Amino acid sequence: MRLHIVNPNTTASMTAKIAAAARAVAQAGTVIDARQPTMGPVSIEGFYDEAFAVPGMLGCIREAERDGVEAHIIACFDDTGLDAARAAAKAPVIGIGEAGFHMASLIAARFAVVTTLGASIVPIEYNLRKYGLADRCARVRAAEVPVLALEERNAAALGKISTEITAAIRDDRAEAIVLGCAGMADLAAELAHEHGLPVVDGVAAAVTLAEGLVRLGLTTSRLGPYAAPRTKTYSGPLAGFAP
Amino acid sequence: MRLHIVNPNTTASMTAKIAAAARAVAQAGTVIDARQPTMGPVSIEGFYDEAFAVPGMLGCIREAERDGVEAHIIACFDDTGLDAARAAAKAPVIGIGEAGFHMASLIAARFAVVTTLGASIVPIEYNLRKYGLADRCARVRAAEVPVLALEERNAAALGKISTEITAAIRDDRAEAIVLGCAGMADLAAELAHEHGLPVVDGVAAAVTLAEGLVRLGLTTSRLGPYAAPRTKTYSGPLAGFAP
Amino acid sequence: MRLHIVNPNTTASMTAKIAAAARAVAQAGTVIDARQPTMGPVSIEGFYDEAFAVPGMLGCIREAERDGVEAHIIACFDDTGLDAARAAAKAPVIGIGEAGFHMASLIAARFAVVTTLGASIVPIEYNLRKYGLADRCARVRAAEVPVLALEERNAAALGKISTEITAAIRDDRAEAIVLGCAGMADLAAELAHEHGLPVVDGVAAAVTLAEGLVRLGLTTSRLGPYAAPRTKTYSGPLAGFAP
Amino acid sequence: MRLHIVNPNTTASMTAKIAAAARAVAQAGTVIDARQPTMGPVSIEGFYDEAFAVPGMLGCIREAERDGVEAHIIACFDDTGLDAARAAAKAPVIGIGEAGFHMASLIAARFAVVTTLGASIVPIEYNLRKYGLADRCARVRAAEVPVLALEERNAAALGKISTEITAAIRDDRAEAIVLGCAGMADLAAELAHEHGLPVVDGVAAAVTLAEGLVRLGLTTSRLGPYAAPRTKTYSGPLAGFAP
Amino acid sequence: MRLHIVNPNTTASMTAKIAAAARAVAQAGTVIDARQPTMGPVSIEGFYDEAFAVPGMLGCIREAERDGVEAHIIACFDDTGLDAARAAAKAPVIGIGEAGFHMASLIAARFAVVTTLGASIVPIEYNLRKYGLADRCARVRAAEVPVLALEERNAAALGKISTEITAAIRDDRAEAIVLGCAGMADLAAELAHEHGLPVVDGVAAAVTLAEGLVRLGLTTSRLGPYAAPRTKTYSGPLAGFAP
Amino acid sequence: MRLHIVNPNTTASMTAKIAAAARAVAQAGTVIDARQPTMGPVSIEGFYDEAFAVPGMLGCIREAERDGVEAHIIACFDDTGLDAARAAAKAPVIGIGEAGFHMASLIAARFAVVTTLGASIVPIEYNLRKYGLADRCARVRAAEVPVLALEERNAAALGKISTEITAAIRDDRAEAIVLGCAGMADLAAELAHEHGLPVVDGVAAAVTLAEGLVRLGLTTSRLGPYAAPRTKTYSGPLAGFAP
Repeated sequence: MRLHIVNPNTTASMTAKIAAAARAVAQAGTVIDARQPTMGPVSIEGFYDEAFAVPGMLGCIREAERDGVEAHIIACFDDTGLDAARAAAKAPVIGIGEAGFHMASLIAARFAVVTTLGASIVPIEYNLRKYGLADRCARVRAAEVPVLALEERNAAALGKISTEITAAIRDDRAEAIVLGCAGMADLAAELAHEHGLPVVDGVAAAVTLAEGLVRLGLTTSRLGPYAAPRTKTYSGPLAGFAP
Repeated sequence: MRLHIVNPNTTASMTAKIAAAARAVAQAGTVIDARQPTMGPVSIEGFYDEAFAVPGMLGCIREAERDGVEAHIIACFDDTGLDAARAAAKAPVIGIGEAGFHMASLIAARFAVVTTLGASIVPIEYNLRKYGLADRCARVRAAEVPVLALEERNAAALGKISTEITAAIRDDRAEAIVLGCAGMADLAAELAHEHGLPVVDGVAAAVTLAEGLVRLGLTTSRLGPYAAPRTKTYSGPLAGFAP
Repeated sequence: MRLHIVNPNTTASMTAKIAAAARAVAQAGTVIDARQPTMGPVSIEGFYDEAFAVPGMLGCIREAERDGVEAHIIACFDDTGLDAARAAAKAPVIGIGEAGFHMASLIAARFAVVTTLGASIVPIEYNLRKYGLADRCARVRAAEVPVLALEERNAAALGKISTEITAAIRDDRAEAIVLGCAGMADLAAELAHEHGLPVVDGVAAAVTLAEGLVRLGLTTSRLGPYAAPRTKTYSGPLAGFAP
Repeated sequence: MRLHIVNPNTTASMTAKIAAAARAVAQAGTVIDARQPTMGPVSIEGFYDEAFAVPGMLGCIREAERDGVEAHIIACFDDTGLDAARAAAKAPVIGIGEAGFHMASLIAARFAVVTTLGASIVPIEYNLRKYGLADRCARVRAAEVPVLALEERNAAALGKISTEITAAIRDDRAEAIVLGCAGMADLAAELAHEHGLPVVDGVAAAVTLAEGLVRLGLTTSRLGPYAAPRTKTYSGPLAGFAP
Repeated sequence: MRLHIVNPNTTASMTAKIAAAARAVAQAGTVIDARQPTMGPVSIEGFYDEAFAVPGMLGCIREAERDGVEAHIIACFDDTGLDAARAAAKAPVIGIGEAGFHMASLIAARFAVVTTLGASIVPIEYNLRKYGLADRCARVRAAEVPVLALEERNAAALGKISTEITAAIRDDRAEAIVLGCAGMADLAAELAHEHGLPVVDGVAAAVTLAEGLVRLGLTTSRLGPYAAPRTKTYSGPLAGFAP
Repeated sequence: MRLHIVNPNTTASMTAKIAAAARAVAQAGTVIDARQPTMGPVSIEGFYDEAFAVPGMLGCIREAERDGVEAHIIACFDDTGLDAARAAAKAPVIGIGEAGFHMASLIAARFAVVTTLGASIVPIEYNLRKYGLADRCARVRAAEVPVLALEERNAAALGKISTEITAAIRDDRAEAIVLGCAGMADLAAELAHEHGLPVVDGVAAAVTLAEGLVRLGLTTSRLGPYAAPRTKTYSGPLAGFAP
């Protein structure tokens, strides 16, 4: 089985880390095809960056579709462009944010999210409300660590994340933690051990969900908002993406 | 990997059908250990049957734990006894109802459930509200087919289920269907083909989710309501189940 | 009028305390028929104990029906087995949890619950959501007092409960308190006096609601999930409970 | 026990009917003290009438307090002026709307309301949302019968109400009906018999709830919005109501 | 354009302050017609005062209608009598509470309200739930400043309000503040400057919304709860208000 | 006052129609600065088109900021890119979808939306949930008229929209209609007259709200998700948009 995992930002080292996290959990026969766009921002921190990451990310989706992947994973915790990708792709598409929320819902009545910057709290809350899972989330916390600060092993960043987990257990009655950034994919095991509760990494979660959908033969419904886009003219540098 | 799937009713032919559905979708290395209790009702149709199915089901969970399974699946769409099982087991536990809802949420903005009898509509709605996914479900419909009527290939039953799917697409704006009974596990592919939309069987969905949790090394949090039960005296025929 | 009040655990001293609380508030002509099962756990603290308390509790319901009671009260704050009991009984059935919530809603815009152990917080929250009254409840607090520690007059336990009430008034804007355990039935008056706000005991509340339903001639609707269970075979030690 | 039941409109025949319904269900020792204001509208049909019914109704509350009643019932299904009455009175106050909703919640998972005119649907929906019980109500239906048309035995009015009940069972999955007007108090038994489901009259429901609160020694909390009004100057014809 | 702004209490100095705030923001051609009732309380602090302020307020609405105003504003943050006024008036009616909430929703994902006394928190929360905007409001805070204490420039009162804003930013993640009393209309600019976030005064907000509705030619729908009241008899000192 | 209104698609005739609708309702001193991007799709019908319309739309926002406009309006009913625009702009930003919802909330308890194609129903529902106004919307209906079919006076399109309005009044209890496409801006008056209820055009609504925000001196809060984007590298054809 061939899974496409797209890092919607342009930072190659982050793509490599994501790919490693994905491969670590993938089944024996699964090939992880990790990509990143050549246009867009080096990291996604809030609504503005999201807007400019989406076209490039959708380009990766389109290319991977042509290459015959069986499922797509969008490896940004804001699930950047997820709805558009579902309309664009024949194969199913999973965001690592929703993946983390769904998997955490299977092992805890109530989870907390620890993300990078405060600017991402509301986007994540909007997604939780959209997915219907807001009631399961005790609180979205920000460690105030920029995304790229996670690229190198960084004791200060880890300490800030750990401090938020401690607070989530003590103050929010969190039973599990969902890590709120693809760049935290390598920290889950260590933090779970330190704090004695399940810590969910969305990248790994999404890989198992994507494998599941493929095995089940399920793909995005065409009956509603994910119907194939109507053919029409697109202008300018994005013209090549016209449906 | 060894997965325990428990049919909480005592009908062996239904256990066999469930096991077959599970094996059809399991990974190469997964062993499906299907069980059913020796005490309890022959089918579960509403709150009363649920109550008497739970002790036997929890007995199966306990035995399977001793046998070293890595995850449990409760194969009744009401997710009978799921919360108690999570407290009882070290391995993670998934209900086929929640499994169906979560997987459907990844491929459709809005799904409908088609279950057996009207008496199960409210129990399923309560679960949807508990899980936080009520907003994703357009409607829970009953085909008015008893559970055991599904045991043999039955054109009338299939017709009633199909009629409800037609109505769900036309009247509820359903984009996907979740089949609301373990006994429907063999119908998903046929109904999906007939109606041209994704049809999710909870048994198969739960197998892939259980495999996913095991690969991710995730199990039920002990910090909240699923902490191990306190040691105490149990009396009467159920005394052997004392924690 | 004859009311059946069932303590779903097997601790006779607790049944006696519950019966006393019920008789203290019952009308002149009401007979309180207090029972407890002979099978099941000595106390109910969380989902696992609930599962094994239900069959015995339903046995009490069945016997009391035969004895011609006009209403049933389930005297465990988790409303253990309430839905199954409604399907099983011709007479109406009330849980002391829901009774406390409904009565508190008549005298306060916003109440808090103080229960025994943290493991009961989520079960109570699930009930509040199921009943539709979650918005009325400011917070469910646990005093971390085991159920049976309430059986004897216990200054330490009372102190812990009182501390939570103080916090609920100060931090949660609670206007009234609902005591979250049948074993607290004797504490309501004292705590109300100490804290200067209404304190609702679910046992007493349920007695007046049950008397009300009987006077009104109202009993559980048979049109939905509480339709009489379909006749079917039950096996094993619980076979005698077959509908 | 002395209960005050106030019909907030000025139609004496309706007060008499309400008093009769109350007395029919009250306990042996309960005295029903029925009143109506001398100022205000002859019937309450929507928000405008409500506004002018409240001062007179609060005058009745004040007088009944002086006369030492132990609880008040506001006998208009919109629960007209309920919040103000709670702040004004030492004794507890119950609206017949909320009484009907709470009692119906004890005997059905899902109820419908059948009220008089379409203009009352939204006021009732607002109350359901305020009380937290909106999720329990399948639908509020209007029979398009003016309030005063119910004052005399009226086959046409009864037929319209009955038609809505039929529709609520068939289309809304209603398991019980709450009659949405004090003027329907005499119809509950007949409609329950005709349709084979519980039909709740708010007047009778409120009487049993009021008796219950008095027995429980519970009255409105003073900690929140129902604190006694601050002393201040009132001008004009309503000056006499100054707190 | 002629806008009617009614201060529902009888304090003329407060009406003057409200009128000034309204004129400061009104368009060049807008005439502000500020009124106050001659009957009712000197200030509105909670449900009881509201009840007695409404008839006089509706009298002002009626007179202003006769004088041909094009829109009405109710200048009490509880939106006292708003629903009745909508049924009474041909011109559209806006409450300053809802005006503040709607405008704050356009500039912040999440706002907090700072009002006068604790008794007003629940009435405001009820309105937020009724309007559907409760999810946008982080918290309603009370500065514990009586309404009339705001009539004269008052450093202590300002300090208490400012303290709550500080807490709302720090503890509630508030991005904007809505001032919860018409008497605070002169404080918005100063507090916005001090705290570095948008501070919305409902009076000014309502003026621009009213101007907008008039320009759009929009007025209250007659199809639902705001249909014109049915003609009927009113008795007593309020008889003159009969529809 | 200078208002920027951006049509996020590239169809100039639609921009002209939008500008005309805006000018028709703007105050005397307001200059309407209407723009459209040179890159992106000719119409926006669902999530995919949205994704490619946003960068060009944000380019217009940026240019208009440089030109000193005092507020921005995004004239696509899906409020395409609204959150990103708020982070990008110093001046406040309003979407015509939210504008329609807020204005309709001031004149009706319950409104319905009539939009173009079924693919837009879910995006609009997501927005309603995000804004908190889902409870105010009875239903989102699609007339199945493509966006560009509205560009020329089109009896068939008008007829389909009118049919949906009829259904919304009859079946959804809608009291007002919000037109769900910028291309319907010229139809509001005619449809309101035909159906006898308020019909809200989001373009006109947004103009008055934008004028209001400017008069009030309110702009987007910088404290939360709309903080200015952090400076970082953007690559490829969208590099020029780097914050």
